[in-house]
Amino acid sequence: MEKRISSAVIHRMPRYFRHLCDLQDAGIARISSGTLADRMGLTASQVRQDFNCFGGFGQQGYGYNVAELRSAIAGIMHIDRERGAIIVGTGNLGKALMSNFNFQKYGVRLVAAFDSNPLLIGTEIAGVPVYSCRQMEEVMEREQPQIAILTLPKMHARAAAQKLVAAGIKGIWNFTSIDLHLDMPNVPVENVHFSESLMVLSYKI
Amino acid sequence: MEKRISSAVIHRMPRYFRHLCDLQDAGIARISSGTLADRMGLTASQVRQDFNCFGGFGQQGYGYNVAELRSAIAGIMHIDRERGAIIVGTGNLGKALMSNFNFQKYGVRLVAAFDSNPLLIGTEIAGVPVYSCRQMEEVMEREQPQIAILTLPKMHARAAAQKLVAAGIKGIWNFTSIDLHLDMPNVPVENVHFSESLMVLSYKI
Repeated sequence: MEKRISSAVIHRMPRYFRHLCDLQDAGIARISSGTLADRMGLTASQVRQDFNCFGGFGQQGYGYNVAELRSAIAGIMHIDRERGAIIVGTGNLGKALMSNFNFQKYGVRLVAAFDSNPLLIGTEIAGVPVYSCRQMEEVMEREQPQIAILTLPKMHARAAAQKLVAAGIKGIWNFTSIDLHLDMPNVPVENVHFSESLMVLSYKI
Repeated sequence: MEKRISSAVIHRMPRYFRHLCDLQDAGIARISSGTLADRMGLTASQVRQDFNCFGGFGQQGYGYNVAELRSAIAGIMHIDRERGAIIVGTGNLGKALMSNFNFQKYGVRLVAAFDSNPLLIGTEIAGVPVYSCRQMEEVMEREQPQIAILTLPKMHARAAAQKLVAAGIKGIWNFTSIDLHLDMPNVPVENVHFSESLMVLSYKI
């Protein structure tokens, strides 16, 4: 059944999840489709329709149980399990993610970082060991990570991605501006393009 | 006329822009709607329809002039002018943006950075002076920036945004996970939510 869910619905799920986490943090236990829709700039019927794709979670007149809906979305998006991840490139951006991003909340455990800077190799950043890129196969063999996070310079991104896929990585979270989709049709790649939201902002000003 | 363009089309424009920049960098002068669509995972008719919203740019049988289409999109998205911006928070993420992001390409000139760390105040990062947060009004008065980039800790984001809007900022590029939309309905806020693409990746693996 999951296969037939549209890409638009899937892309809205992370926003629902974020708002439900905020509601839970604020101690709110139940919410109506209308109130949730208002918070998110959607309509109530859109919200109900989205959740109907997955069998629906609300009870007419009672609204949604925030904790249950949050767990259900975590299940749908497969973040309710633990997946190992490695991060390639520990410059400012890599460090920012390692220090501040709540990987655990998204079912991800950072098992290793890689860098080419000899001063960093053998150290730890936010509790995660930094290895030389030459140790990549060895560490991957041992830790069996599924996700690779690319925060390395653009010019090395393509070669790194190919090496990682050959070594068994299952998905790439790409922070470089290189388009990797065409290189590896069987491995999902999700890109973080900072510029897209800046352009939309610029349009709206 | 611009007002009637759907949000979905506006949100695709940055992707067109990115692909057209890549094509131009690769020395490609013309491209058909079909080839452009293939690169982007769209259909040729979708591409033609999107550009028809703005009056259309191609010539039947000739395809699009890459440089012209790129310029036209820059104009539509208002990145063909120069806007001043300030960055609030020069931790790892702020530094990563200041050092690596090509602001100029998006019509943005970074005029000042702000931080509360006394060791950083008075220094420069990537050629941009770092000021104390207490100097914010004074610097804004002088530099008249339109965009504020929030890369400060989450707990300070809301107060900083309110202060910036009161001091005349026109748009916020928000890297914190705080939702600022409801606080300031008249100032556009675009969020960079790292977690959204990670959740979509997790779903696809």
